[in-house]
Amino acid sequence: MAQAAALSPLAPKSYPDLPPIDGVRFATAAAGIKYKGRTDVMLALLDKGTQAAGVFTRSKCPSAPVDWCRQKIKGGKARALVVNSGNANAFTGRKGLDQAKFTASLASKATGAPIGEIFLASTGVIGEPLDASKFDGVFETLIANARPDGLLEAARAIMTTDTYPKVATATAEISGVEVTINGMAKGAGMIEPDLGTMLSYVFTDAPIAAAALQAMLSRSAQGSFNAITVDSDTSTSDTLMLFATGAAAKRGAPKIATAGDRRLASFKRALDLVLLNLAHQVVRDGEGCRKFVEIRVEGAASATAAKAIAKSIANSPLVKTAIAGEDANWGRIVAAVGKAGEKADRDRLAIWFGDIRVAHKGLRDMTYDEKKTSAYMKGEKIDIRVDCGAGGKGVATVWTCDLTKEYVAINGDYRS
Amino acid sequence: MAQAAALSPLAPKSYPDLPPIDGVRFATAAAGIKYKGRTDVMLALLDKGTQAAGVFTRSKCPSAPVDWCRQKIKGGKARALVVNSGNANAFTGRKGLDQAKFTASLASKATGAPIGEIFLASTGVIGEPLDASKFDGVFETLIANARPDGLLEAARAIMTTDTYPKVATATAEISGVEVTINGMAKGAGMIEPDLGTMLSYVFTDAPIAAAALQAMLSRSAQGSFNAITVDSDTSTSDTLMLFATGAAAKRGAPKIATAGDRRLASFKRALDLVLLNLAHQVVRDGEGCRKFVEIRVEGAASATAAKAIAKSIANSPLVKTAIAGEDANWGRIVAAVGKAGEKADRDRLAIWFGDIRVAHKGLRDMTYDEKKTSAYMKGEKIDIRVDCGAGGKGVATVWTCDLTKEYVAINGDYRS
Repeated sequence: MAQAAALSPLAPKSYPDLPPIDGVRFATAAAGIKYKGRTDVMLALLDKGTQAAGVFTRSKCPSAPVDWCRQKIKGGKARALVVNSGNANAFTGRKGLDQAKFTASLASKATGAPIGEIFLASTGVIGEPLDASKFDGVFETLIANARPDGLLEAARAIMTTDTYPKVATATAEISGVEVTINGMAKGAGMIEPDLGTMLSYVFTDAPIAAAALQAMLSRSAQGSFNAITVDSDTSTSDTLMLFATGAAAKRGAPKIATAGDRRLASFKRALDLVLLNLAHQVVRDGEGCRKFVEIRVEGAASATAAKAIAKSIANSPLVKTAIAGEDANWGRIVAAVGKAGEKADRDRLAIWFGDIRVAHKGLRDMTYDEKKTSAYMKGEKIDIRVDCGAGGKGVATVWTCDLTKEYVAINGDYRS
Repeated sequence: MAQAAALSPLAPKSYPDLPPIDGVRFATAAAGIKYKGRTDVMLALLDKGTQAAGVFTRSKCPSAPVDWCRQKIKGGKARALVVNSGNANAFTGRKGLDQAKFTASLASKATGAPIGEIFLASTGVIGEPLDASKFDGVFETLIANARPDGLLEAARAIMTTDTYPKVATATAEISGVEVTINGMAKGAGMIEPDLGTMLSYVFTDAPIAAAALQAMLSRSAQGSFNAITVDSDTSTSDTLMLFATGAAAKRGAPKIATAGDRRLASFKRALDLVLLNLAHQVVRDGEGCRKFVEIRVEGAASATAAKAIAKSIANSPLVKTAIAGEDANWGRIVAAVGKAGEKADRDRLAIWFGDIRVAHKGLRDMTYDEKKTSAYMKGEKIDIRVDCGAGGKGVATVWTCDLTKEYVAINGDYRS
């Protein structure tokens, strides 16, 4: 394992209180998958009747656990979630799927839950066989130790090159009954020869059916996890899951079957908040990052076009290195807008850094103050706004971080 | 201007002899656009009857000279080419087009050629107004000094952050008559707040009509300039032009009207060679590069799919940093194949570094020798071959360079 990276300068200053969610318990253990002296496996135990939804990587080369989950999520029910760090079980062929299955069967036996309701994820080195026999006997201990307040420790056990665990919480009300949403995420990049993996798990006590969870999760992911980028390298293992134990029904919350139900308004807002919070934390732990960058594109032909333009800016190495150099280089933003391939009008384009308009009607803004702009670029949070001039109503916001020499060092130097 | 970068370690050891092409003369001057103590404008004078073809950036925010050329190339005729460095005349609004027009009118007056047969390009800072009055009187001197053997000096005058001028030459025969193709290119990236600009101009004495030139140029660009990437940032100013003076007709070469003419076989091969040579030189001058990387993808559903997968690998920051770190990180190649969105079969995927097969049938190759592979990765030229396992006949090759800390330094540090 490479040496531990220093804590990201954009790490949160403190962790929120995480109210336990009725119906979920967590435990962690050191199974010795790869790391020494730290936990590397987490188990989330879910009460019977827990509904589940999931969004998985679109990679054409997904990991074995992603294949497993994509198959099992069709049932919409979950009883346990097992995540290990230290090995991604990706690009491990038929044997990889066998090891995933073996892990699930051990968890099923220990918990007494049907194997089809066990969900899995692995994150770490790619291409190395995962030895699932290391989990033998571990589940019994995990079950014995599972606690409702173990979320933060669970988030820590699934870290790889992350410099801090990522958790978030929010409450919502459904017909006057308070429900809780707790989430965790991991993801930063890679130091060893493995794949950057983004994993996120969200839990709630709200009594919401799987189909409704799935619809809300897919929609909410668009504006959060699908709106961030560290280095444009989609992982083979990206997984986002939402589990609803339904325990709040005991306190009078109505059971809800469809995502269109108006009683979900508060829940949807809270879910958006939790996912966005976690997604931002992933960016803030981006490898080598120094600055958190928000890019908002307006005036595009459609929301899809706006997002494509925003992603083109966010993934441009030249824009990202300019931000690292504290340079308000709007010329590179123009280039990134141009290469996105979406409709834009060069002669009506406008660009802002924070509140400072640097370009207007296809020209440098004549009132633009270089000194004020330089001062703005020294900040930790950089907001870039672009009106792409296409005259449409398409708007999108994405988040990214700067590209520093440390990113290259983390991803290139570790073997030398 | 930022300090001159050290010569790229991948620069050619010597320049080829460039036989003059009948009907083309070159001259350079220091017009003081931005740089001090160096040439910054070149003029290519083309004899009457010269046929022209061009390929321009697909950016939706093209520079004013690109707008100009795209309009004028429809006529298929050229008498002069004017290129300046130090200012890109991009994102300069209506005034930018006025300055381009003014430049062309000065050149037209001085040469006596119709304004519609004057071609332009500008490369350098973006968003700064170009003061075309600096060209006033310069053309008269340029015309007086124009020489058939001035190609290398011309290539030098259009450099911005390039560390060496890029030229190439080849001969071909048309019905037994030898014709010559000479070309130049510029492009490396950016140091000042401007756009990375790729410019390339190719000249021949072959008597070939504009429509045939255009068809051949578009096709040949696909496998050369459209198959390279330094940092995935498409410029606003990319321009590739081919000029045919037709002077070889005096020596008995037949006039050729269509690209399908069989007598062009040798010419097409030579054109491909010249474009590929120039495109490789651009990559070898990629900002901060240490290694020249060839990526060949086989077994894809189509040639288009193969190219998309190859570009996905070539543009992956994780693949590029791994190569900089001399790490045969095939896991990152799997991830890049997966994210390309094209058909691939993870369980039939195979990957080679040079002749060493590191992955096979969706698994690490069991015979893979870590020591041998590490030795291979220390070389200056890295060949990566991927069979994406889709079982198709689609094949594509692209070229790129590694991503080093120097790239970040060049593009982020220069203001600090």
